[in-house]
Amino acid sequence: MGHDIRVLTEAELRAAVRLDPATVDVVERAFTALAKGGVIMPPIMSMDLEAVNGEVDVKTAFIPGFDHFALKVSTGFFGNAKLGLPSLGGLMVLLSAQTGAVVAVFLDNGYLTDLRTAAAGAVAARHLAPATVDTAGVIGTGLQARLQMKAAHLVRPFTRCLVWGRDRDKAQACADELSLDLGIEALAVPEAEQAVAESQLVVTTTPAREPVLRAEWLHPGLHVTAMGSDAEAKNEIAPEALRHADAYICDRVDQCRALGELRSALEAGQWKNDDRPVELGEVISGAAPGRRGSDDITIADLTGTGAQDTAIASHVFGALEGSDTGTVIRA
Amino acid sequence: MGHDIRVLTEAELRAAVRLDPATVDVVERAFTALAKGGVIMPPIMSMDLEAVNGEVDVKTAFIPGFDHFALKVSTGFFGNAKLGLPSLGGLMVLLSAQTGAVVAVFLDNGYLTDLRTAAAGAVAARHLAPATVDTAGVIGTGLQARLQMKAAHLVRPFTRCLVWGRDRDKAQACADELSLDLGIEALAVPEAEQAVAESQLVVTTTPAREPVLRAEWLHPGLHVTAMGSDAEAKNEIAPEALRHADAYICDRVDQCRALGELRSALEAGQWKNDDRPVELGEVISGAAPGRRGSDDITIADLTGTGAQDTAIASHVFGALEGSDTGTVIRA
Repeated sequence: MGHDIRVLTEAELRAAVRLDPATVDVVERAFTALAKGGVIMPPIMSMDLEAVNGEVDVKTAFIPGFDHFALKVSTGFFGNAKLGLPSLGGLMVLLSAQTGAVVAVFLDNGYLTDLRTAAAGAVAARHLAPATVDTAGVIGTGLQARLQMKAAHLVRPFTRCLVWGRDRDKAQACADELSLDLGIEALAVPEAEQAVAESQLVVTTTPAREPVLRAEWLHPGLHVTAMGSDAEAKNEIAPEALRHADAYICDRVDQCRALGELRSALEAGQWKNDDRPVELGEVISGAAPGRRGSDDITIADLTGTGAQDTAIASHVFGALEGSDTGTVIRA
Repeated sequence: MGHDIRVLTEAELRAAVRLDPATVDVVERAFTALAKGGVIMPPIMSMDLEAVNGEVDVKTAFIPGFDHFALKVSTGFFGNAKLGLPSLGGLMVLLSAQTGAVVAVFLDNGYLTDLRTAAAGAVAARHLAPATVDTAGVIGTGLQARLQMKAAHLVRPFTRCLVWGRDRDKAQACADELSLDLGIEALAVPEAEQAVAESQLVVTTTPAREPVLRAEWLHPGLHVTAMGSDAEAKNEIAPEALRHADAYICDRVDQCRALGELRSALEAGQWKNDDRPVELGEVISGAAPGRRGSDDITIADLTGTGAQDTAIASHVFGALEGSDTGTVIRA
């Protein structure tokens, strides 16, 4: 009792933090910490609410060296569109790592999740993509398709971007936005295969339940980040692609086994159960190899971790220092 | 976006809701719903933070028929006392069961958990204690010792209360408070055995790791509620007591197996793994027997459920209707 809790709305958060190198760096710190050990990150708490066509996920992680830890609630209620409301929502609570006191509540409606997810893509690209990327491809046309390309561009300033989606108009709109925002050439292409063939860096950003990227499309000098799968039924990358790659890297092995591309590969018998993949943090810290040469094929499997949530929420709190943004409640 | 979120502090919550029959009734509704099925209640999310002598638990439950569901974060940071801060803390987030939108944040520092835990004790007493309770006993002298007696008194208006604790001064202080608050005779007794022998209703409220209530103390016409154990190492009731009772009742079987008195009984070989105990909600709804006569010995094992959190948070939200308590944030 008797301490201040800062409450910020989505609008205030959008004004306070954006996708930039500092955001990527703090998320990278979280991955490094994950590899070092000492991070406490329980399994995702999940509710599948069939009766109301909704789902709720809760993530958290305590990272040694961070002054705070976050507890993140993500909601997806898929009947909301009919009511004119967004399907996705949620909030983050930031707590003191020393006392457990709640220090901030970020009513972000998923904005910070979008940011930290994109930032993780940039971290993967920084450590796994070839040093030079001229062309980047994206499979998918939604918000993360755009954010992933903007994030990747921070670390690999490509000059050309190819967008593929099942809906050509949406792919064109996505390409137009990326062209304008990044000041590069961006095109919607008619086949996913073309986006992969002509790119050195590809990000898949779909909720696909059947692979959208085939193993035979992999080519020397390609890095693929699959960030769409975050649930048991999802699968973006053909299961045999994982072992065809020179390096297959998880954000967190346990989660990828349960929810990521690894789950599909294990199920298809394309990955051995006792073969533990390398984690992104191990590559960053040099504890395990990632890309070994410009011709390597690398795949990163990102399911989204509570450590990223703690990283982005801590970053926001730091960014607020000295400002009076938000509502302060003395609790 | 564009909806109001109400934020309440502990002080505002204390003014808005208290331990009363309405609180007991709404928690009883949650137990009934649990027994009926359709409740989605994932396992507790837990972080044991040895490095900072802290722990974090997250509970939630979606209850059909409730307009909202709660997500509750409880913290225990045991170095706080040295800093002059309370060890326990946390908050509840209330979300719409229809849209998933966050509708309220209760910065309660554990107050609502205290209430719903006490209310569950009253529900157990209402459905399991003998119809007439002259004397109630409590093992433990902390906040829950007091709240459990006050809650039980709402449903079994006993005229005498016996308090036992390892610290005689604390037991006396607890008895003094209960005497004053309930207008009854309340005494600190030198032996736990006496508190049990002379009572028809006993509540154990300790963090004990060795039993504080022995099986041979059970006597005809006794109901015991054990509410202290909520973690793997805790154990208040001698393991053999469970099968000596005429009815042993769980708040939630899965949780009691992992965290309750049932865990110790299973471990000691005093309960068969394939013998599923009855749940409190099944007794309330009449689906399973509880006490069958005034001479029965009954034991309730309460580990604390997310359903209780959803119940109390929904109750608070209802109580706020028409008032302008708290801070409204348009998010």
